[in-house]
Amino acid sequence: MGERVYITEVGLRDGLQMLPQFVATADKLELCRALIATGVQSIEATSFVSPKAVPQMADAAELFAALPAAPEVTYSVLVPNEKGYERALAAGARDIALVLAATDTFNRKNINMSLEAATAVCETVIARGRGAGIRSRAYISAAFACPFEGATPMERVVALVGRMFDAGAEEVAIADTIGAGDPAHCQRLFRVLVSSWGAERLAAHFHDTRAMGLVLAWAALSEGVRRFDSVIGGLGGCPFAPGAAGNLATEDLVQMLEQSGFDTGIDVWGLRRTVRVAERILGQEIGGRVTKWLAAEERRRATAAA
Amino acid sequence: MGERVYITEVGLRDGLQMLPQFVATADKLELCRALIATGVQSIEATSFVSPKAVPQMADAAELFAALPAAPEVTYSVLVPNEKGYERALAAGARDIALVLAATDTFNRKNINMSLEAATAVCETVIARGRGAGIRSRAYISAAFACPFEGATPMERVVALVGRMFDAGAEEVAIADTIGAGDPAHCQRLFRVLVSSWGAERLAAHFHDTRAMGLVLAWAALSEGVRRFDSVIGGLGGCPFAPGAAGNLATEDLVQMLEQSGFDTGIDVWGLRRTVRVAERILGQEIGGRVTKWLAAEERRRATAAA
Repeated sequence: MGERVYITEVGLRDGLQMLPQFVATADKLELCRALIATGVQSIEATSFVSPKAVPQMADAAELFAALPAAPEVTYSVLVPNEKGYERALAAGARDIALVLAATDTFNRKNINMSLEAATAVCETVIARGRGAGIRSRAYISAAFACPFEGATPMERVVALVGRMFDAGAEEVAIADTIGAGDPAHCQRLFRVLVSSWGAERLAAHFHDTRAMGLVLAWAALSEGVRRFDSVIGGLGGCPFAPGAAGNLATEDLVQMLEQSGFDTGIDVWGLRRTVRVAERILGQEIGGRVTKWLAAEERRRATAAA
Repeated sequence: MGERVYITEVGLRDGLQMLPQFVATADKLELCRALIATGVQSIEATSFVSPKAVPQMADAAELFAALPAAPEVTYSVLVPNEKGYERALAAGARDIALVLAATDTFNRKNINMSLEAATAVCETVIARGRGAGIRSRAYISAAFACPFEGATPMERVVALVGRMFDAGAEEVAIADTIGAGDPAHCQRLFRVLVSSWGAERLAAHFHDTRAMGLVLAWAALSEGVRRFDSVIGGLGGCPFAPGAAGNLATEDLVQMLEQSGFDTGIDVWGLRRTVRVAERILGQEIGGRVTKWLAAEERRRATAAA
């Protein structure tokens, strides 16, 4: 067995939240079951965000209550603030994720708060969670660049990571929200972060906007990171680059990692089937970049077996 | 200025050779001019292969004679054997490229020769070229895997690289012909090759079949390689994975390298325009994976400037 790499499937939240059509709770649950069948053991299931802001997540409590019982799977939920935290707790969540954008302008435009105020909210929620035995993961979003401010200063990201760990976060995920990172920058950033906090509690969340999702993952991996987020079929575009590719696709990431000798515990052919489930639910063709090869390989194997 | 990375545009040969429709010589020349306008300084222009085997390259001599005069550009041509070498020389070529597949079965199926016989042909052509002042580049193709034999043994690739250098090749390009490589394998292979011959005379040629084209390039780069092949728009599929992505796209590679601080001398917006030229010529949408982002960014900049 190769070295273990841990993948958190964030498709049910990050993959779906921007979709114009509401995906029925039953369909979300079907997608969830398909993901679990592939071997996925960490799923970000929904977001307790305001239903007005993100209608797609309006069924958060209902969905959370209906998630498949699977002792080996950890379900986390995103909470945007204290109100979301309280809703998540009431729904029974024990693992929460918070998002802290790394620039002042992004926070002001997105949640009408200064960076300092947004940081304080995260610190408060993490501390409250800690007191209640809730595990927190903090995303530092726009960690490479901000659509309003341009390149995000590395020392800012490092400082925010420190504040999240100091507040009691179990894990911090570095998120390239607009897919603006490059592998050289990524390696410099993770080198600093890993030297300060070790790789064990760091995760990486990439988008494929500029086609660099996999390269960024490999770059972070080269610095010791073993925790990655990804989304089935690469769902979820970037609102600042309409039409461009979305999240790093789980099937692309798993194919690369398994072929490179790492052990993800996830079956790439199961992911191929899950892409089909998602396509049926969404009524459109989706798929990461490796999907066409997987389809060709599937046909080749079927022919060889016939 | 960042460290220099040298890109050989192989689209006019590897990008077009598999296309069902013949691309007119004048159109090939237009594509060539567009590429030169982006700053590309090394172009594999055509192949002196049998016109029966590859009808797309039937205009090799005519095309070569009509290539734009550009003192800063090196034009190379592929030669499959001694006959092709003679045709190339007669056409005025001074830089040739040879392809040596790394497995016995691939050679037997493709050119009806044993691996040893195919190696000897390459050695003969390189030696003849050397005597005539012709620079040779040798591709070791199927260097990661063979569609017939599976994984290619690394020691075989190393031995063949040695034979090509010993014969007098100026450069050896490691080609992942069917896009089967992974970054871990790639780093192991180039570590051995660079330790034996240095990075200066080694090049890497990747396909995006399994979505790993850019990751493989980054992996090779991490081992010191600074010479890469790529194809505008990622043209050129893999015959063993119908429908899957083609060559590593020049625009994807340039975007990653320039953003990571390397200097390719190539303008990514020029590549965007060149993709449009290729689309007009081919009558179909093409484009590397970064193309949609480039298009979105182009619109954003136009709006900002308006």
